[in-house]
Order: sequence, then structure tokens, then C-alpha cells
Amino acid sequence: MTARRLYELTTEDGCSISPYVWRTKFALGHKKLPYESRAVGFTDILTIGPGTFKSVPILEDGGNWIGDSWAIASYLDRAYPGAPPLFSSHVDYGTTRFFERWLTVEVVSKLFRICVLDIYNRLPEKDRAYFRQSREARLALPLEAAHCQREQYLPELRERLQPLRLTLREQSFIGGDSPSYADYVAAGAFIWAGSVATVELLEANDPLVPWLRRCLDLHDRIGASLSLPGLPAPSDQNGVSR
Amino acid sequence: MTARRLYELTTEDGCSISPYVWRTKFALGHKKLPYESRAVGFTDILTIGPGTFKSVPILEDGGNWIGDSWAIASYLDRAYPGAPPLFSSHVDYGTTRFFERWLTVEVVSKLFRICVLDIYNRLPEKDRAYFRQSREARLALPLEAAHCQREQYLPELRERLQPLRLTLREQSFIGGDSPSYADYVAAGAFIWAGSVATVELLEANDPLVPWLRRCLDLHDRIGASLSLPGLPAPSDQNGVSR
Repeated sequence: MTARRLYELTTEDGCSISPYVWRTKFALGHKKLPYESRAVGFTDILTIGPGTFKSVPILEDGGNWIGDSWAIASYLDRAYPGAPPLFSSHVDYGTTRFFERWLTVEVVSKLFRICVLDIYNRLPEKDRAYFRQSREARLALPLEAAHCQREQYLPELRERLQPLRLTLREQSFIGGDSPSYADYVAAGAFIWAGSVATVELLEANDPLVPWLRRCLDLHDRIGASLSLPGLPAPSDQNGVSR
Repeated sequence: MTARRLYELTTEDGCSISPYVWRTKFALGHKKLPYESRAVGFTDILTIGPGTFKSVPILEDGGNWIGDSWAIASYLDRAYPGAPPLFSSHVDYGTTRFFERWLTVEVVSKLFRICVLDIYNRLPEKDRAYFRQSREARLALPLEAAHCQREQYLPELRERLQPLRLTLREQSFIGGDSPSYADYVAAGAFIWAGSVATVELLEANDPLVPWLRRCLDLHDRIGASLSLPGLPAPSDQNGVSR
């Protein structure tokens, strides 16, 4: 039997902290493909596999090495055509790519600014200098200064989510009646940020909360036991349990 | 033979000015369903068919009356399963609904604010009082005041379009290699606003321009001969002709 391993970024206490890794964890669950998890730090990434990867997730699958969550999703559909598809058609693949771009540009970027110091504080010592340097360069701002601005980005984040909210008022998942790769892209971002945030990212009555709870319950309850301090507690949602 | 008629809003000079009607014109073209066009004004809408419709498009199809562009698209796929589908799968239907919500919330609303006085100036006399009253109530602002603010909304509109731009750098259409209902939703908005705008909505080098030109050439060159003063001229795009 050949090995299938997913390399993922984790905090000191074993919490997976990449929105992109979460997409892949959902994708593997969707396709019912078991895997071993390998916890790595930011500064380990260049030592993995062929040594050419610069980010996680990285999937090692029976001798194949694949990086980048979108490339992994495409690979999984090609390599396992008999398992449930991540993309239902060519058109669905194209439209989901738009969704991924939207989520990354409008949502992940804001979650990142809001949570950047919270992420830093959860990192192992060995990754902190690298993270501070690279992220402060990206933000053109000290992490602490970005943290002070988070209250200003929260309303903007919530406003940008309005199209998603309107969609999920009418249907259970972005994919309609059943979850799709677009759901995994979005849920992954909220799990990533919700795991570390020290501020409530969504209001308790946000229609996105019950949708996210549905996502956490997918694929053998993939996220049902997670601690998500940055998201409203389950009791805030009438009749929705985790 | 039973009649198929599309009721659409038009300006004095016969220009179709509803983003929602344009979606339906593209949808009928996609499904290769010929139709007669019926030009109506805002103040005629309540007199059409059963008299229960409050907006266009309205489709009369062999005795069936259907309003609302999304409902019409769904109807066309149900009624004509042998014609090219507008939605390739249940998941595609769900994800395209998100796209439609995004486009309406983030793009159409801003195009409306930017072009509202330009639309008014092109309306037949009989529709002007109704349009001014209803739109000023919606904007909580005189049309002329909204017009003065348009320079402030233009950069915001262009920024919100970034996810679409990134998508169309990689693929010819939102639907991938071939156009999908998501393309029609987006192209319809630019045609509507581009037909009346007295300001350039997109910069000449915007990657959305060649995509829009491709859309105008679809379905017997559905929009190839349109005058679009609010969009960059074809000569601004190397090698892309109208």
C-alpha cells in the first residue's frame, strides 16, 4: 500500500492553521480518501519532498508530490475519477474558480489582517521570526499595528460577505443541496481564522453560522470537535448543534 | 406555432436598458430559442400579461408567463431539456446563484448609482416621473446628487471587480472554455450600463474588456453592433475587434 500524507501547518497545540490546508482536508474527506497528517512549521516547508514547495498544503500520494490547494483538488478529480467529484462539470470548475478568487481576495485577506497577531501568538517559537518578518513586509505594518486596526476591518469583512449570506438564505450549501468545493474553500477560511481569532468574526445571528456548523459536521464530523473561539458559540444558534 | 415574446425596457432610441433583460436575451440565445421582442416602458409593466409583474424581463412562452430573470433561466432549462443547458449540474446551479448574488450586490448596485442620471436622460417622457420618484426614494438622494458622486463610486466598482479579473486572466469565460449563465449575468450588467454611461466604466487595459467583447460576439453576435459609450472602444484592445 502506498502512503498518502498531507503536510499541514499547526500551532503549538496541534491546531491546523492554513485556510488552504483546510480546503484540502475537506476535499480528501469528500472523496473518501484516508490520509496521514504530518504537522510542519513554516520554516520546515522547504525541506519537504522535492524541496521546491513554498507553501502548504502539500500532498504526497503514492509517490506523487502536489502543492497548492487548487492543484491538489484538480489532481484528486483526475486521479480518482471513481470517487465523488469535487467539480461536477467544466462549467462548475470555472465558476468555482471565480468563487475561490472572490473568497481569497475579499475574505481571506481581511481575515488575515484581523487575525495576524493572534496567529503569531499561537506559533511555535522557531517560526515566529520568519512569520513576523514576512507578514510585516506583506502588510507594510508591524503585526501589533495591524492588530490595532482590526475593529476597522471587521465591518468591512461582514459587508463583503453579504452575497454569501443571501445565497445561503435560499440553499443549504453554496453547492445547493449538497456541499461543493466552493463550500470547502469558504468553510476552510472560517475554520482557520475562527481557530485563532480573539475577536468574534461573525455576529451570533449571522446566517453563515448555521451553514458553517453544517460544514463542520461533514465527512465524519471533520470539524465538530474543534475549538473555534472566533466564532459564535453553538448555543447562540437556535436548534443548531455542533 | 405558439408565440415566444420577451418584454424588455427600452430607451427612446430602442436601446434595451435592463441588466436583467440582457441575461434573458443571452439565455434565449444560448438555448437557440427564437423570440419576438416587445419594447415596453416602466409604466407599462403592470399592464403586461396577467398584470401581476412588477419588473422586466417577462417571458411569454406558448401561453406560459414567467417573470424574473433567474426564474426564466430555471424555466428554460426545465421546459427545453434538449437545448444546451444554462446550468450544467445542481452544483453549478447553486454556485451560479452565488455569482448572481455577488454581481447584483457588488456590481449592479454600483453601476446603478454611477449611471442613474444617464438612464433617466434616455427614458421616454412618460416614464421619467415614475423613474425619478422611485429611484430617488431608493437612493435617498436626488438623481443629480447621485450623479455628482459617481467619481467616488468608480474606483470602488473597479476594486470589487478584481476577483472577476483574476479569474478571466486564466480562462476565456467565467464558465471556463465556454460561456455560462454566470457570463451572461455579468455581461448583461456591463451592456446595460455601458449603453447609457457618460463616463468610462472600465479602464482601456482592463482584462474584462476582451472578455466582454467575446460575450458580445456570442449567439449570432448578440451585441456586436451595440453602441457602448461607457466602455473602452475596441481599438483600445490590441487585436480584439467588435
